[in-house]
Amino acid sequence: MADHPFTPTVYWNTIGSHEPALYVESGDTVQTTTVDARGWDSAGDQAAARGNPMTGPIHVAGAEPGDTLAVRFERIVPNREWAWASDVLSPNVVDPEFAARLPKADIRRWKVNAAEGCAELEDARAGYWAGRRLPLRPFLGCFGVAPARGQAISTSTSGEHGGNMDYRGFVAGVTAYFPVFAPGALLHLGDGHALQGDGEIAGTGLEISMSVRFTVTVLKGRAIGWPRGETEDRIFTVGNARPLDQALQYATTEMLRWLTEDYKLTVQEASQLLGQTVRYEIANVYNPAYSVVCLIDKAYLPGVATS
Amino acid sequence: MADHPFTPTVYWNTIGSHEPALYVESGDTVQTTTVDARGWDSAGDQAAARGNPMTGPIHVAGAEPGDTLAVRFERIVPNREWAWASDVLSPNVVDPEFAARLPKADIRRWKVNAAEGCAELEDARAGYWAGRRLPLRPFLGCFGVAPARGQAISTSTSGEHGGNMDYRGFVAGVTAYFPVFAPGALLHLGDGHALQGDGEIAGTGLEISMSVRFTVTVLKGRAIGWPRGETEDRIFTVGNARPLDQALQYATTEMLRWLTEDYKLTVQEASQLLGQTVRYEIANVYNPAYSVVCLIDKAYLPGVATS
Amino acid sequence: MADHPFTPTVYWNTIGSHEPALYVESGDTVQTTTVDARGWDSAGDQAAARGNPMTGPIHVAGAEPGDTLAVRFERIVPNREWAWASDVLSPNVVDPEFAARLPKADIRRWKVNAAEGCAELEDARAGYWAGRRLPLRPFLGCFGVAPARGQAISTSTSGEHGGNMDYRGFVAGVTAYFPVFAPGALLHLGDGHALQGDGEIAGTGLEISMSVRFTVTVLKGRAIGWPRGETEDRIFTVGNARPLDQALQYATTEMLRWLTEDYKLTVQEASQLLGQTVRYEIANVYNPAYSVVCLIDKAYLPGVATS
Amino acid sequence: MADHPFTPTVYWNTIGSHEPALYVESGDTVQTTTVDARGWDSAGDQAAARGNPMTGPIHVAGAEPGDTLAVRFERIVPNREWAWASDVLSPNVVDPEFAARLPKADIRRWKVNAAEGCAELEDARAGYWAGRRLPLRPFLGCFGVAPARGQAISTSTSGEHGGNMDYRGFVAGVTAYFPVFAPGALLHLGDGHALQGDGEIAGTGLEISMSVRFTVTVLKGRAIGWPRGETEDRIFTVGNARPLDQALQYATTEMLRWLTEDYKLTVQEASQLLGQTVRYEIANVYNPAYSVVCLIDKAYLPGVATS
Repeated sequence: MADHPFTPTVYWNTIGSHEPALYVESGDTVQTTTVDARGWDSAGDQAAARGNPMTGPIHVAGAEPGDTLAVRFERIVPNREWAWASDVLSPNVVDPEFAARLPKADIRRWKVNAAEGCAELEDARAGYWAGRRLPLRPFLGCFGVAPARGQAISTSTSGEHGGNMDYRGFVAGVTAYFPVFAPGALLHLGDGHALQGDGEIAGTGLEISMSVRFTVTVLKGRAIGWPRGETEDRIFTVGNARPLDQALQYATTEMLRWLTEDYKLTVQEASQLLGQTVRYEIANVYNPAYSVVCLIDKAYLPGVATS
Repeated sequence: MADHPFTPTVYWNTIGSHEPALYVESGDTVQTTTVDARGWDSAGDQAAARGNPMTGPIHVAGAEPGDTLAVRFERIVPNREWAWASDVLSPNVVDPEFAARLPKADIRRWKVNAAEGCAELEDARAGYWAGRRLPLRPFLGCFGVAPARGQAISTSTSGEHGGNMDYRGFVAGVTAYFPVFAPGALLHLGDGHALQGDGEIAGTGLEISMSVRFTVTVLKGRAIGWPRGETEDRIFTVGNARPLDQALQYATTEMLRWLTEDYKLTVQEASQLLGQTVRYEIANVYNPAYSVVCLIDKAYLPGVATS
Repeated sequence: MADHPFTPTVYWNTIGSHEPALYVESGDTVQTTTVDARGWDSAGDQAAARGNPMTGPIHVAGAEPGDTLAVRFERIVPNREWAWASDVLSPNVVDPEFAARLPKADIRRWKVNAAEGCAELEDARAGYWAGRRLPLRPFLGCFGVAPARGQAISTSTSGEHGGNMDYRGFVAGVTAYFPVFAPGALLHLGDGHALQGDGEIAGTGLEISMSVRFTVTVLKGRAIGWPRGETEDRIFTVGNARPLDQALQYATTEMLRWLTEDYKLTVQEASQLLGQTVRYEIANVYNPAYSVVCLIDKAYLPGVATS
Repeated sequence: MADHPFTPTVYWNTIGSHEPALYVESGDTVQTTTVDARGWDSAGDQAAARGNPMTGPIHVAGAEPGDTLAVRFERIVPNREWAWASDVLSPNVVDPEFAARLPKADIRRWKVNAAEGCAELEDARAGYWAGRRLPLRPFLGCFGVAPARGQAISTSTSGEHGGNMDYRGFVAGVTAYFPVFAPGALLHLGDGHALQGDGEIAGTGLEISMSVRFTVTVLKGRAIGWPRGETEDRIFTVGNARPLDQALQYATTEMLRWLTEDYKLTVQEASQLLGQTVRYEIANVYNPAYSVVCLIDKAYLPGVATS
């Protein structure tokens, strides 16, 4: 249960079976940093090539294909005082007929105050944004493990291995679970967002470098199909694909497996629970693969008392 | 501002320019009942043909194409003590490969206690559902106004005119807005659900007959493109289409219009607000047209104080 | 087997259970005309409201729900010397990022010479289209029978009842089959195109009024699920839905039913035939419902000799 | 213009920047073999791991990012006398409700006679397939160049770099064009099909090992966005994505670029040509990325005489 301060020197724009940058044991904690989606670090220097450069990979001893890697985030905090973001919606989230009327997007700077937990548009002297502040909710947009078959997959997209899911729910306090496809799991992480709405519909969150602290644990012999997660109140699954319909199918099937295989509900019992109480969140509807999250309240899990 | 107790005698399985069953004025309140999706009324009798039979249509004096009809629900309460629901997920919400492994769906009865606000599966003597209760959250699954061009559209689906959106957010306290396409607007309503999760992924909610009270108001000269709504805290828009991607495009474009045309934000101001704070809800992913809801907190609307 | 010359005086912009304009017997032939998608007739006069106005409906004696209506086109010929067409692709068929770069679409006139079977852009004095001619291939873009449940469905879209499929394969010589949902079947037809590529990707074909001759036959007790068709060489099924994936699913399932129920192949036999020889055509990728056609060579049907 | 007989000894299940197996010059011809999708070679031995193992990569001197690689197939001929194929449609190509009724798929053997150009199901003693033969049309299902950003992408899927497109149009006589992303282009090839219908809807063609002969040419400084191709009569572009709608958008946009940038048509001229004459083919609707092909007759290209 060692504690690893780790300063990255190499960054990757794919998630794959790259040379490990750090070796840890199951149960260890890592304290590190991530650069932003364009490779700018805490000092605003270009530390890596743009396109979601990743810190890592981190090799977790004992993780083998067929296992699950748990990553519990203890801390995700912006480590500089500004972020950048697009100022126009992505054309794929509006009617095709309307897309032609969208103005050209610019990148705008936001002031970020991590101590007070808020952000404001930097040069908003007049209009809607003048004097207006938004509350921060920092998370990592892109993280995951080396994919199957020796693939190296661009950090612009996502899959069973995680990747660029841009799910605003991956905040500190959450545990993420990934299927292990390669020895050591090979965790990569980056693409911090100080804030983002559902879907990442402007194509960015408030993009920023981060200070991150997390603990990795290998769950031996427990195979899952898609990224899963757990908050204080809910369990969830993530499906990554296009269109949203298919991402939802993956997430729902994974939740059905979780409820029937781990929690021993019958398909009918689980279907009735999901049918009347499921929640979905649209994590991203912008990247090459979209991400849909399927959530169930822990209050409904067997063994937990209900009203 | 009259109050109309109304007992339906005719039901429609399409939403269209049918003979009005009730004539009211803008500002009037209607107290009526709806039968369930199979046409069973409060006594359990077959009062109408199955397939979301509608109470109405209600003609609202002065409503003309180009106006908006506001429908504020004051009360949506089950008027009998049982509901029915499917017990297996719909095959279209799981992986196609998994669909073949789903058991055949049955219809199950639920006991509904409106006074205590809870429901339980009727014959659950053992297993997960034994002794387990779910909290009610009653809403109408299908309601809307006569569509454009003299169409009569099946209540199995939805469109710009509303219809079978199966949005669990249309509870008492919410105001729904519809574009008016025909003189008198011609409001139809039915398909009550005592409870339902996101997406109606088992193909049903807890299907039940309802006692409903609502107030209709004509907003003259205010044209909207898709159903909109308003809760105490949020405004929202609804897009109805397949796949989910397109439903989301419709809902997002309609919200962008609302923010720019009514609240006078620029496209960039609105895009930045949506990009960092928007919420989406998947209302239904089962009907011929899926429904996606786009929501913004009222706290972010201009003129409202922010943190 | 009467022959009915029929001059329409009323046109409909929905397909529904409207008052029949003509009563015929099974086996009868009808000779009539259709106006173009904007309601302009052979003389160029506005004879009907724009939006695919339909000739009909034609009531075929003896057709009842559960039967099939066969419509064999003997003649589909433009009855005026000009057509109109859009000159820019629809934004939904290009990348969303590219859609913003499309110029604004205009409507252009084409000269149509039915005798010589060719068309040319009317005012192309220079550039690509100067002196260039395209061969005609006239068909009806929108035709079908009254849909189920008393619906009246806009002629902008399509469904199990047919409608605005815009399939360039519905030329003279082809027999179309529709499921009958209402007594008399109630055939509507219109929206002639002198020529069109796959998908109707500019949003129009060469839009023109037509002289049409066809024979209707009721196939008693033969129920089908979706429009079907037959050429000299092939049989085909049509699925109408969004996205293309679902239209393809409907068409493929309908073909599988045809091969197994009518031609008595097992699912495996039919799957192997389809897997190695099926052809798909994208009829339209523009209307509210897209249309995909699934085709099999008649040479592969049982009872027909093969190489 | 050397001729390279090449016997592969290593196979790859990803397409990526792997160690070149053969170095050639632009204009050179390669004569080699490919194993089938399960790694079985001409002798039926397991020569490589299953999952579309690739022959190559072949390094073409002078090819740099921003160039185009042309691959002209002179010969694609089965080099053994049997193929294998699935006998049931993939569940994703039928209605979700119907998927549950599909029988379990088996792998069946087909006898392949390359000399006579036909195939027949091996053990069809009775029923539809007894004595029935299908004409061969051999092509490569999976081939392409190393993708951008150092990615290594599974041969189960496809993208801008080509890959598992399963397009039955890639037969001998056709020239394929790929964007070059890595020095030497790094061509991979395999997954031969002796025959397949549109869409690969049973999940396989007639899977077989091949003898292949092709010529590679580097087109310096000519950048393309997606795979393109050319037959004697037509030019075409390939879009790879889900759903089919997006694959079609990619293919159409690429064709529009081709017509406007290379053939110097205006967007309006190209739109009118595409709108009235375009053809689409659904290459595959089975793999993780679907493939849609957009085709134009060469007769319509500027400089070519027309009727």
